[in-house]
Amino acid sequence: MKRTLAEGVVAGDVRAASRLMRDVDDGLPSAIPELQALHRRTGRALVIGLTGSPGAGKSSLCDRLIGLYRRQGKTVGVVAVDPTSPFSGGAILGDRIRMQEHATDPEVFIRSLATRGHLGGLSRAAAACVTVMDAMGKDVVIVETVGVGQDEIDVAGLAHCVVVVVVPGMGDDIQAIKAGILEIADVFAVNKADREGADRTVRELRAMLELRHATAGPTAAELLHHGLAAAGHGAASTAPAAPVWEPPIVKTVATQEQGIDELARAIGSQLAWLDETGQRPLREAARAKAEFLAILRERLLASALDRLERERGQLDEVARRIAAREADPWSLAEELVAR
Amino acid sequence: MKRTLAEGVVAGDVRAASRLMRDVDDGLPSAIPELQALHRRTGRALVIGLTGSPGAGKSSLCDRLIGLYRRQGKTVGVVAVDPTSPFSGGAILGDRIRMQEHATDPEVFIRSLATRGHLGGLSRAAAACVTVMDAMGKDVVIVETVGVGQDEIDVAGLAHCVVVVVVPGMGDDIQAIKAGILEIADVFAVNKADREGADRTVRELRAMLELRHATAGPTAAELLHHGLAAAGHGAASTAPAAPVWEPPIVKTVATQEQGIDELARAIGSQLAWLDETGQRPLREAARAKAEFLAILRERLLASALDRLERERGQLDEVARRIAAREADPWSLAEELVAR
Repeated sequence: MKRTLAEGVVAGDVRAASRLMRDVDDGLPSAIPELQALHRRTGRALVIGLTGSPGAGKSSLCDRLIGLYRRQGKTVGVVAVDPTSPFSGGAILGDRIRMQEHATDPEVFIRSLATRGHLGGLSRAAAACVTVMDAMGKDVVIVETVGVGQDEIDVAGLAHCVVVVVVPGMGDDIQAIKAGILEIADVFAVNKADREGADRTVRELRAMLELRHATAGPTAAELLHHGLAAAGHGAASTAPAAPVWEPPIVKTVATQEQGIDELARAIGSQLAWLDETGQRPLREAARAKAEFLAILRERLLASALDRLERERGQLDEVARRIAAREADPWSLAEELVAR
Repeated sequence: MKRTLAEGVVAGDVRAASRLMRDVDDGLPSAIPELQALHRRTGRALVIGLTGSPGAGKSSLCDRLIGLYRRQGKTVGVVAVDPTSPFSGGAILGDRIRMQEHATDPEVFIRSLATRGHLGGLSRAAAACVTVMDAMGKDVVIVETVGVGQDEIDVAGLAHCVVVVVVPGMGDDIQAIKAGILEIADVFAVNKADREGADRTVRELRAMLELRHATAGPTAAELLHHGLAAAGHGAASTAPAAPVWEPPIVKTVATQEQGIDELARAIGSQLAWLDETGQRPLREAARAKAEFLAILRERLLASALDRLERERGQLDEVARRIAAREADPWSLAEELVAR
């Protein structure tokens, strides 16, 4: 009997893994039972989220982390959601060539995801890639995203440890972090730290973290554990106050291989803290929630659109009628939801 | 009889508009019939998308455009989705104060949206705000987003004209544009054009646009009109090749009020082109599609989660069971979708 893709993945077959991820991308129904079968084989990999603005040097850091983990004898998977990442083919030629050293390493599995054309299914696709890489036995899975936008924040929710990468001397970026990214950071990497202003950036980050703490707002851990439920869906969680993780701030110069060991140690210490404080199960539940919501959202939409096209004609025609004010989008959506 | 919120909005009542947008944000079911009633009263406003990286100066440009349109006697609405925007409260105090001149202008209506806690409903909320502002009679509605991430690209789909703001001397940013934003740009603003490298940035953008044209890839207009359907959902559209709009590139220095007239003229010429070439209905349909998908996605998720919690217990408990491998997220999602 021919073995399933899931069996191939568990056996470490790279081609089966690639095929399954492509099937997921293409939205083939046959991918679902494979992923279902893989779910119980997952939970072993350490998932690291790497996020930050374009140009912060996430890909170079990722490259260095791959090298470090490989020297420790660990196998590595990379899911690149960042459109500017050389892993996704978005970067300049020089970067792409530099990455080739890992591209030929059979123990490094790299998969890039397009950021367009997913109808919001980007985090679902990312979740599936993490599942496949975990199931095929990768010790570490790095998910690289651009740190702006809800979709990307959702993707970060798949990680055990979220590393937010910033660069010195960009006051505006600090503002961006403040607004959306601070809450999800477990570790800060101030990359390109040989630039002027690195120490100031470190101080600003530290001040922001302290301010946050002092004003008794929700901690990063609390937001991550309870944020989705509290913010978007009914009653806020009333769990007792969780112990607080203070995100370390590490200076790195990825291109010079500086600070990479420290960064890896900071990641390791956060994971050790999760275990020591008994926070690990909460974090795993938060990851599961992020994954489940991503899957649910995208499957619901695809299913509703199928029904719409069967009953109401092509989406383009429906859109034309909405634009002509012959129908309104709220009623059409309610009608589909009511079924 | 007390008038409905929708009636208040149509009468130009600012408090009714604010209230309705807050109800939308809070996910109150009572908001839906109000929005349904408003839909037929919309379609008059010109919707301008303003997007780009944090620090590109989108808010300053927005501020200048407000001033320009106000001098032309037009009323203006602003929907700020950018977490770094002073409109959203994310920026430094100086910026915020500078904006106050418009905050006290009764003909300028500003509404900011949080980028967290929307469970992917960000573009739905933005769509609702545009609807309300359009219905209350604003001549121009500016939607300000950060130009990275699928959610933000979806929001840009609500606009008649998308202005992508870039700054000189950021090679990485050009790459980011190339990867995700180029397709949706109707007009480029090279802001902070008094900085070194502005002309080079203009040349790079022009080269990218020409390259794109030469390789006969889909044009911006084609992608916008057919992109969602083609990329995410079944068969690609086979519409005949649409006439091609060449995005103009305008140099601006928002803080010095330079280039603002040219920018507004570029926006105006793109809109005139839509009318002259008969592309306007296609664009309106694309806008309606973006809006409909945003609404549908979020309503489906909310409805499915309600059902889940009724039948399977709280989402947190479901997540815990997934994390413990007692259930898998794909099966749970399929089960909910199958209803």
